[in-house]
Amino acid sequence: MRIHIQNPEAESIFPLTPEQWAAALARNPDMAGLQPSFAHDDAGFAAAIGEAELLITWTKVVHARFSQGGLKALAPKLRTIFCTSAGLDRLAPFAWLPDDVALLNNRGTHAAKAGEFGLMALLMLANHIPFFAQAQQRGEWAPRFGSVLAGRKLVVVGLGSLGGAVAERAAQFGMVVTGVRNTARPHPACRQVVAQDALDTVLPEAEFLVLACPLTPETTGLLDRRRLGLLPKGAKLVNIARGAVWDQDAVCDALESGHLDGAVTDVMVPEPMPPGHRLWSTPGMFVTPHMSADDPNTYNDNSLDILFQNLRLARQGQEMPNRVIPKRGY
Amino acid sequence: MRIHIQNPEAESIFPLTPEQWAAALARNPDMAGLQPSFAHDDAGFAAAIGEAELLITWTKVVHARFSQGGLKALAPKLRTIFCTSAGLDRLAPFAWLPDDVALLNNRGTHAAKAGEFGLMALLMLANHIPFFAQAQQRGEWAPRFGSVLAGRKLVVVGLGSLGGAVAERAAQFGMVVTGVRNTARPHPACRQVVAQDALDTVLPEAEFLVLACPLTPETTGLLDRRRLGLLPKGAKLVNIARGAVWDQDAVCDALESGHLDGAVTDVMVPEPMPPGHRLWSTPGMFVTPHMSADDPNTYNDNSLDILFQNLRLARQGQEMPNRVIPKRGY
Repeated sequence: MRIHIQNPEAESIFPLTPEQWAAALARNPDMAGLQPSFAHDDAGFAAAIGEAELLITWTKVVHARFSQGGLKALAPKLRTIFCTSAGLDRLAPFAWLPDDVALLNNRGTHAAKAGEFGLMALLMLANHIPFFAQAQQRGEWAPRFGSVLAGRKLVVVGLGSLGGAVAERAAQFGMVVTGVRNTARPHPACRQVVAQDALDTVLPEAEFLVLACPLTPETTGLLDRRRLGLLPKGAKLVNIARGAVWDQDAVCDALESGHLDGAVTDVMVPEPMPPGHRLWSTPGMFVTPHMSADDPNTYNDNSLDILFQNLRLARQGQEMPNRVIPKRGY
Repeated sequence: MRIHIQNPEAESIFPLTPEQWAAALARNPDMAGLQPSFAHDDAGFAAAIGEAELLITWTKVVHARFSQGGLKALAPKLRTIFCTSAGLDRLAPFAWLPDDVALLNNRGTHAAKAGEFGLMALLMLANHIPFFAQAQQRGEWAPRFGSVLAGRKLVVVGLGSLGGAVAERAAQFGMVVTGVRNTARPHPACRQVVAQDALDTVLPEAEFLVLACPLTPETTGLLDRRRLGLLPKGAKLVNIARGAVWDQDAVCDALESGHLDGAVTDVMVPEPMPPGHRLWSTPGMFVTPHMSADDPNTYNDNSLDILFQNLRLARQGQEMPNRVIPKRGY
C-alpha cells in the first residue's frame, strides 16, 4: 500500500520522520508491506498524492487541500486519511469527504498526557494555584489551605480518550466521579454515568467540572450562563475540550463574582489568544496555551501504533475504531 | 489522664474543637478515659498546665512557653507534649526538654496532602506551569510542550512521611525514583535508596529533585551552589522541606542562567515572604505560601488518630513512633 506522509510546512512541531516510521514498523512487523513517502512542501504533496492510498497528515493540511471539495480528482486512489489530531471539528461538516474514503482521527494518542494534565489541573484547583500565581505577581503572601481530592465530587463531560483518562486518574485519587456522555453507558472510572440530556441534574453536585468532549453543534455553548448558575458556589472548572464548549465571558463573570473558585483552561477562543484578552487577567483563571494533550516524546510513536492497529483490524474485516462518523461529528 | 489542649491565640487556623475531640474518641473508644480541657488564652493555659499530664498544642506555643527552660516548674505533671506540626526545627536544640517528657511530632498527618502537593508540583514542572504563569501575566501566548512523568528520573531527599508519600505518588505514575536518607535502607516506592553521604552521586541523573527532609544542622544548606551544579541542565526542583535546606540565591541564579528549568517551592526564608523578595519574581520559580501539607478538612482528625495510636503503643510498653529524638533533631 502506498502511504504518503505530509508533514506541516510552516510549523515544525512533531514532524513524522523516516526514523520514527522505521521504529514503528519494527514494533509492528505485520505492517512491513507499506511503502511510505515523506514531504513537507507543495511539490512533495503534488508528486505523491495521485498514487497515495493512505495519507497521514495534520488537520491544517486536510483543511487546506480538501475542504473545498475535489478530493477524488486530486487523489483518485485515496481510501484512508489519518489525521494526527484528536479533535477534527475544524473539518466539519464533512461534505467534502467521499463515502468510500475513511477519515481516521488520532483518538488514543493523547490519553496518557491528557490524563496527567487533567489530574494536575484538579490538584492545582484543590490547592488554589491560580490564586497563588496571581498573588505571586503582586508579591503578596496570602495563605489559603487546600484539601486532598479523596471524596470530592467531580463531573467529567465527555468520556472519550481524554475525559476517560482524566476520570481514571481522578478515581485513583478517590474522587467520586460522575461521567456525562451521549448515552448513560457505564464507565469503569465513574460512580455513575448520565446521558448528556441529564447534564443539568448533576451540575448542582459538581465541586469540580472537567470539559473533555468533542466540539460539535450539540456541545457548542454547552456550559452557558444558565448552567454555570446550576453549579455550587465555589465550583472549580477545567476545560481541555474546546473554548467554544463554554461561554467564556460567563465563566469570567462567575469567577469575578466569586461564584466559581477557579478555572484552568487549555483551550480558548481565539487561539492563539491575543494580548489584552479577558481570560489572561480574570482572577482565578489559569491559562495554558493548548498543550495539555501533546507529548513530543511519545506523540508520533503512539500515533503510528494507533494507525497500524486500525489497519490491522481493517485487514481482518473489522471496523476501524478511529474512523470519524460524519453525522456524529467526531 | 489530664490532657490540656492549648489552641493558638492569634491564628485561628485549625483550632482543635470539643466536637473533633468527641468524634476522635468515638473512632478510638479505648481512649475514653482521657479528660480534656481546652483553652486559647493565657488564663486558660495557666489554669490547666499545672495538672496537665499531656499537652496538645502548636510549635509556637511550645516555643513561647518552654524554650527558655522552666518546664518542670510550670508543668510538674507533664509527661507528653504532642506538637501538631510536622517539622519541629524551631524548637531545636532541645535543651529545654526534660528527659522524662516525651515530645511527639505530628508525622503522618500531612502525608496524603503532601503526597498530592508533591505530585502536583512534579506535573506542574513537567508541563511548564511556572513558565505559563509568568507568560499569562504578560498576556503572552507562548506554547511549549510537556511530557508524561513515566520513565523520568526523580530523586527524593528525605523519605519520611512527606517524602515517602511523594515517592509513592511518583512511582504510581511510572517515575524512576531514587531516595536519599540517613541510611540506604530500601523503600517500596524507590528503585534505589542511597545514604545522604552519597547524595552527590545521584544528582547528575536527577531530572526532578524533591526536597522533603527535616531541617537539621546536617541538612541546612544541603542543596548549595556546588550541588546545584551537579544537576543536569534543565533539572526541575520541588522544595517542601524548609527554605534553609537549599541556597535560595543559588537556586535563583540557576533559574536565571537556564541551568534549571523550573522550581516549585512551598517554603522559603523568611516566612512570610515580604514584597520585593527575589523568589517572587525569579523566572521559572513558582511560590506557594507554606500550605502544601495542611488540609483543614482532615488535619485535626488525622492528628488525634495519630496521637491516640502513640498513646495506645505506650500503654502496651512500646516506643511512641512520633517521639522526637533530640540528638537526631526530629
